[in-house]
Formats: sequence, C-alpha cells, structure tokens
Amino acid sequence: MALGEFQLIERFFSNGGAVRDDVVLGVGDDAAVVRVPAQHELVVAADTLVSGVHFPAQLDAWAVGYRALAVNLSDMAAMGAAPAWFTLALTLPQVEERWLAGFSRGLRDLAVRHGVALIGGDTTRGPLTVSVQILGLIPDGEAIRRSAAKVGEIICVSGSLGDAAAGLKITQKGVQERTGDERHLMQRFLEPTPRVALGLGLRGLVSAAIDVSDGLYADLGKLVAASGVGARLDIDGLPCSSALLSCVGKERATELALSGGDDYELCFTVPEQRMEQVQHVAAMQGEVIHRIGVVEALAGVRCHAAGRPVDMPFTGYDHFAP
Amino acid sequence: MALGEFQLIERFFSNGGAVRDDVVLGVGDDAAVVRVPAQHELVVAADTLVSGVHFPAQLDAWAVGYRALAVNLSDMAAMGAAPAWFTLALTLPQVEERWLAGFSRGLRDLAVRHGVALIGGDTTRGPLTVSVQILGLIPDGEAIRRSAAKVGEIICVSGSLGDAAAGLKITQKGVQERTGDERHLMQRFLEPTPRVALGLGLRGLVSAAIDVSDGLYADLGKLVAASGVGARLDIDGLPCSSALLSCVGKERATELALSGGDDYELCFTVPEQRMEQVQHVAAMQGEVIHRIGVVEALAGVRCHAAGRPVDMPFTGYDHFAP
Repeated sequence: MALGEFQLIERFFSNGGAVRDDVVLGVGDDAAVVRVPAQHELVVAADTLVSGVHFPAQLDAWAVGYRALAVNLSDMAAMGAAPAWFTLALTLPQVEERWLAGFSRGLRDLAVRHGVALIGGDTTRGPLTVSVQILGLIPDGEAIRRSAAKVGEIICVSGSLGDAAAGLKITQKGVQERTGDERHLMQRFLEPTPRVALGLGLRGLVSAAIDVSDGLYADLGKLVAASGVGARLDIDGLPCSSALLSCVGKERATELALSGGDDYELCFTVPEQRMEQVQHVAAMQGEVIHRIGVVEALAGVRCHAAGRPVDMPFTGYDHFAP
Repeated sequence: MALGEFQLIERFFSNGGAVRDDVVLGVGDDAAVVRVPAQHELVVAADTLVSGVHFPAQLDAWAVGYRALAVNLSDMAAMGAAPAWFTLALTLPQVEERWLAGFSRGLRDLAVRHGVALIGGDTTRGPLTVSVQILGLIPDGEAIRRSAAKVGEIICVSGSLGDAAAGLKITQKGVQERTGDERHLMQRFLEPTPRVALGLGLRGLVSAAIDVSDGLYADLGKLVAASGVGARLDIDGLPCSSALLSCVGKERATELALSGGDDYELCFTVPEQRMEQVQHVAAMQGEVIHRIGVVEALAGVRCHAAGRPVDMPFTGYDHFAP
C-alpha cells in the first residue's frame, strides 16, 4: 500500500518524541510555535546524514533514525545546552512502511530519552538524506564556545575514542559470528551516546568544548584554531576501550582514537584548578573523563608519546577533502 | 582547486545574510546562539528542495539559493511571523566554486532583503539537496493557524495563481527566443515572492492562513480539513495574470491556478466585516488580494463556475502520491 506524503507524516511523525508544555503548535501547520523561557538564549544546530556517506546504505532503519538525532544532540552537549525541540527534513527514495516504522522508532526512542519534541519538518522524494535541526536552551550568556580555550589549560575528553570507527568496519564486514568485544564496538557505532547531561554539568566550569565527530585530531584542531592557540596531545594517554585494544591492538587503537570519526564524545579545556570539580561533575553522571593534553600558545596540534614528539599522519574526515 | 568543507563554509557562508544584533554566536561553532525577545514566541519551519524533484537539475545556482530561502520565508508569511534566522543543510555532489558562488549569492540577496541571518548549518557530500530551517518571531499567541477558519468567512488569495507552473514549463522547454509574457511567467517561477509583509499585516485580522505551494485546490483543502470545515471555490474568480491568460488561454489558466504548484501566495479566510480592513492593509503594501470563495460547513472543496458546481479533477502535488 502506498501512502501519500500527508498520511505518511501523520502516521509516523505526528507523535515524534517527548510531549512538552512549551510547544504551542506542533507538527501539521505551515510552521511550529514554541515558547522560549525568560533569561534564556536559543541554541541552534543542524546536521545532515547522507546514506552511503555518513552511514552504510544497508544500516538498520532504527539506527538511522537514532543517529540522525544523536549527532544533533551531541552538538547541544558541546554547547552545554538543554535540547528542547527538533525538526526533521527527510528525503526518501520511496515510501517503505517498514523502514519508516523503524526509522521513526529510532528517532522517537532517543527523543523521549532526552525530553525533546519533534515539532515539524518536511518529507520529500529523492536520495535518502536525513537532516535534523535541533533547538536548545541555555541561560543567557552561558553557552560553551569552542573559541575560548586558554594557554595552560588541561585538555580532556569524555568516554573512549575509536570504538565507533572500529565498529563501523565490523558492521560493514557483515560476518554473522561476532565476539562480545566486536558486538560492543558495533554497538558504539550503531548507538552513539550524546553526552548531553555531561555538557550541562560542564557549563560554567570549562572554557571551551567541541564534540568529537570527525576524529579527535581534527576536532581538537578546530577548537584550538578557533581559540587562537595550539595543543600538545599525549597520545599514549588516549582513552581506548579494552574491546578496541583487544580487537585491533594498541597501535591501531591509537590511530582510530585520533582519526576515526563518529565518537560523539566531548573534548574540552579546563583550568587546572577546576579539574577536581569537573571530575566530580562527571562522576556524578557516571561519565569518565580523561586528561589528554595541554593548551599551548603555538598554533596546531602536536602529538607526544612517552614525552617525545611523534608524527601524526592521520587527519579527520572531511567530506570535500581534495 | 578543491576546497575542504571548512574552507567552503568559511568562504561562501560565513556572511550569509543580514547582520542582526540578536545573533550572539553565528556560523562556526557546534551551534549558533540567538536571543528571542520577551513576549515573543518562536516560529519554526523547515523545507527541503531536491534537485530534479523540486526544481529542474539545470536550474541556475542563484535561483536554487533564492528558492531554498523563499519557500521557507513563505511559511513564515503564512503564520504572520517575522523571519529572523535560518540554517542551511546543503548536500552537494561536488564542490564547484562557480555554482556555490551563485547559490550563496541567491540565498544572501533574499536574506538581506528580509533581514534574516544565516546562523549555521551543515555541508555534506551527496545528491544535490538543499534544506533550510527558518526561525521567526511572533508576539505571544498571535500566530495565524490553518485550523481556525469558520463557516461563513470569505476565502481570499494574494497575487495571481498558476504563473509559476506555466513558467516552469517554459523554463524546461529551453527555447531561446521568448515573448515578454513568457519571460514574466518564467520570472514568477524563478523568483517567487514570499508574502512576508502581507502576512505580518494580516495578523489579528484573518482567522486562518496557508501558503499556496502545492496548488490552491490542495492547499485550501488542507486548510479547511485542519479547520473541520469545507469550502466553495468560485473558479471563474481565480486571479490569473494577463501573461498567463495570453500564453495558455482561460481554461488552462484556471487549471494551473487550481493545481499548479510553486505560487507561494497566501490563501486565508476573513470574517466579512474585516474585509475592508484586510483590503486596506494589502493596498498599503502594494499587494492585491482577491475573494475566491466562502467557508462552508460541509467538508471538502467544491468548485463553482458561473454559480454552478463543476467537477475538479485536478489535485495538488504530492511527492509520494500512489
């Protein structure tokens, strides 16, 4: 049975996420209307996933829906913002109800978990592309920027790095029998955890933050460039999971931690005297954070291992790299 | 010369539209930060254009950029909202600097005209798809919904209908020599005018509004369905431009006015006693509005010509129609 665009929206997306009191008018009009509380600024991000570019074309529909929202929640986390509402621009080659059911469930599962409401969007015909724009709230003037890192600050990262890049490779192999470690890495790729609560907790404590989506080396590079500083990165201190180490070994794990994408961890800089408080905030939320380097005056990111400079031939993912 | 994603954003989109005091943080961080004034609600819409679906693949880059923003401004107009900021999710098969220069100019020209600022977005590689999300402002509780039309109200439409659909066909023919009328119709397709100022003026006067993007018959159908009412449409009173009438004749002009898409005019319902005031507001803005029917209790849209019911075999554009 084919569905028209209208029935499609009604059926799969009219109840897309959390129910919120501040939604005056949701899906179904020319636009949605929401209320921004007093003394709060609006935080806005948009991220697009293209099939075959940002995820394998065969990826399970649930994982596509989940991922489309997760990458946007991760942007809110990096700003220290509380995500509130989102719109979905979904381009589909055809209407497959089974695919749509899975996709909308993945989106909704994560939306409900974070209390964000789907308030509108657009469905169009074309090559599979999922574009989410997310709107969040932050008390006036408290957004964490990537441009405020200062020389001497400690560089930290949450969770572990490189798992998702390894998980993607395992997913693409399509083998049936997998070890527990392999399943863990796949899970890290398929269901990334945006560090929203951690981002909220870090507000007022950290100087600068970015989410790690294109690989630590590239994303830290953007942070220090925006701040007009540089970084020394201690690559033997990079947090790699035991699953990653056991599957690919130390050297490859370090490489994936530096240049593999899709981690969606937070990288941030903190004055030394606030490190204890930051560790406390993270522990309260069951998150682990690691010191991985220090902000320096000289531009660029320099990798060190065992206290000595080492070459870093890897770079992050760039959709339009020459 | 190939450009990386980062340089691309910097070069073409860092200055994408009007400069506004309420943008705390624009393009270049994980998210943008903006200020919503007190006693105002936020109005949010998103519309996607897919190459080959929403516009011909050969369409001039300037016109693609212009159009991507115009269709979103039209949604703001239909709500009576003042557009303020937008994000751009741009998926491109490859980086062609010439195309990007034209596209960004089209986007910026219209953005500056309406005082809206480009505050963020995402550029990705893939089939050409342009998704804009627009954010607007409206005094608390004043949004014009499509769901509040009442029986007995006059149905009006702005401007003229059917021009863009005829203009698209002329554009696709690719003939070199064109009459002035043909050029006018092409212009109406290539450079639709979102009725933003009219929408602002209609706030507090009209009961319900929708923008005409999928054809009057389909869009009026959505308005009356959302309002739980129906409509009688006097199709011999539909506003058709002299250019359209001279190019395609009366019968085809009426057909295009009913079912051709891409008009981006406003269709709205008004209590009879407010018609004079509405006409005054429109005239102040140099806009023309036309009475085209009346809201009735019986569901559905019924076409009348010379006072008698006529069949309406045409329907609006549905991307996923069976």
